[in-house]
Amino acid sequence: MSGTVVVGLDVGGTSTRAVAYDLTGARRGEGRGGGGNPTSHGADRAAAELLAALRATLAHVDPTRVRAGTIGLAGAGRLLADPQARAAFDGAWSAAGLRCPYTVHGDALVAYASGTAAPDGTVLIAGTGAIAAQVRDLRLDRVADGHGWLLGDAGSGFWLGREAVRRLLADLDRAQPPGDLATRVLAELTGSPEVAPRPRATADAVVQSVTGRAPVELARLAPLVVAAARAGEPTGVALVAEAAARLAESASRIRPVGAIDPVVLGGGLLTGDTPLGDAVRAELARRWPDAPLRTAGDGAAAAAWLAARELPEVTDPAALHALLVPGSALG
Amino acid sequence: MSGTVVVGLDVGGTSTRAVAYDLTGARRGEGRGGGGNPTSHGADRAAAELLAALRATLAHVDPTRVRAGTIGLAGAGRLLADPQARAAFDGAWSAAGLRCPYTVHGDALVAYASGTAAPDGTVLIAGTGAIAAQVRDLRLDRVADGHGWLLGDAGSGFWLGREAVRRLLADLDRAQPPGDLATRVLAELTGSPEVAPRPRATADAVVQSVTGRAPVELARLAPLVVAAARAGEPTGVALVAEAAARLAESASRIRPVGAIDPVVLGGGLLTGDTPLGDAVRAELARRWPDAPLRTAGDGAAAAAWLAARELPEVTDPAALHALLVPGSALG
Repeated sequence: MSGTVVVGLDVGGTSTRAVAYDLTGARRGEGRGGGGNPTSHGADRAAAELLAALRATLAHVDPTRVRAGTIGLAGAGRLLADPQARAAFDGAWSAAGLRCPYTVHGDALVAYASGTAAPDGTVLIAGTGAIAAQVRDLRLDRVADGHGWLLGDAGSGFWLGREAVRRLLADLDRAQPPGDLATRVLAELTGSPEVAPRPRATADAVVQSVTGRAPVELARLAPLVVAAARAGEPTGVALVAEAAARLAESASRIRPVGAIDPVVLGGGLLTGDTPLGDAVRAELARRWPDAPLRTAGDGAAAAAWLAARELPEVTDPAALHALLVPGSALG
Repeated sequence: MSGTVVVGLDVGGTSTRAVAYDLTGARRGEGRGGGGNPTSHGADRAAAELLAALRATLAHVDPTRVRAGTIGLAGAGRLLADPQARAAFDGAWSAAGLRCPYTVHGDALVAYASGTAAPDGTVLIAGTGAIAAQVRDLRLDRVADGHGWLLGDAGSGFWLGREAVRRLLADLDRAQPPGDLATRVLAELTGSPEVAPRPRATADAVVQSVTGRAPVELARLAPLVVAAARAGEPTGVALVAEAAARLAESASRIRPVGAIDPVVLGGGLLTGDTPLGDAVRAELARRWPDAPLRTAGDGAAAAAWLAARELPEVTDPAALHALLVPGSALG
């Protein structure tokens, strides 16, 4: 059994990470590549990054020993529906010497599995966007939000950034001095914290700065909101509380009242020690007081575990999860 | 005095309208042209539409008798800052045989003047976008919102349309049958009122339908919301109430507590006999119980009045307003 190796990949927009484990939980290799999302990078370039990460991971592993593999990536459904992208990924898999099949899962499922081995539960993710999903037997079931910045992503980094600008514009409309957060947002957008003698001129400059970029770039203001909330700044505190309520509302669209299975929090805004993570945990504990709250961890290791649990020799998937994704139960 | 004529133009994105009056209040001519906004149509084409409207208006008027003229248009500030556009408008003015100078005002001021002769007050406009402005001595003073769909336009037609789609997506996320308004929005966006067996597929189709067009086109859904509210449909009623509260909040950014000068409502969502107009009037009456509420009327006539009141022989501008813009005091 220790001869068997599994491979997991966490393919993101800016980096790809691969890991190999044997079934005793020992890590047998690790590798990295650049962004490997076929939707944003093109199938061939994405497959090249996948191959680079796999080759580094398998540098000291006989690839014929690899019995299962899982790739987690955003937009997994689009990959599976795109024969060209699928062929490019198949080619990279073979070029790395791998003979076993591989499965593809969405990043939401992998984030869930990086936080718990429980087959059923909920995952709630907030980064640039926001999405909540029910997991049934370690498959994504119903999904809420994830509708993108124009129509959804309530409580996301985009949402926090846009609302911070709206508060700034309201201060300028009222001709009242911007608060601490609003002043930082103003400086970030216009290069100066100063309001013109005619505040409308400053408001117009703010709007032009935002509309001169892609809307989703409003998410880059989210760290300012989080920092303000951490410092107790009133607008930052209020926006983080509203974001937490909206994220919990998205979860409530798919998660039954009284559910006691785990909720895993993922995405950059929820996995660190952030005020938004704390506020979301409080909202979730209020709505589902008996549910364990977990935090997403190592996505590549979780992908490897998702691969391993399909093998007949893995009789206690939960025990293997504790070896491969340590710390996830700490929440 | 009856020999003196004034000209007013209401220049919009889809049509241009011009009128000529003498100072007894008799209409001496009227003309129309296509969209004449130099920002969206280009200076030369806009000027050509202006000239067409002026020539029709002055068909039976000696243009040397015209002593004053006013052009109202959205983005008046951009025209005044653009020498090329200004030269094109000057050229059209001269080509129509006009020898007097003309003034340019924003459409918000013209909308205000089409509802009242009071020199000081507030104008609140909701169409595709939304804006509120204070008027001081018949000049625009402070402005609130008008920040565009990404960051502002709270309570506008865009806002109503986007929120209606959001409510539909929430129904689909919850896997509950869409309500009446949501079903109409679904049919408008996807061509069918049916929800797929997997509601997420329908949600994705809704998002794709919206993101395949310019965001501002969400405003075309606003009439569905208004119609639903008129029929007492709960989501429509709730969205109209929230839009009214947001519009009143925008007005409150610039209008002092306890103000008793008039508020003029303008824009397609507020000037008709619409539930949103009614809801906004109720919100305004609650916040400013002693203020007269007016409704915007004939913009070209208001522009003509704004021109006339600068003439030395016009000693009672309010009396002339009652002649040129009849009905405006009825609110």
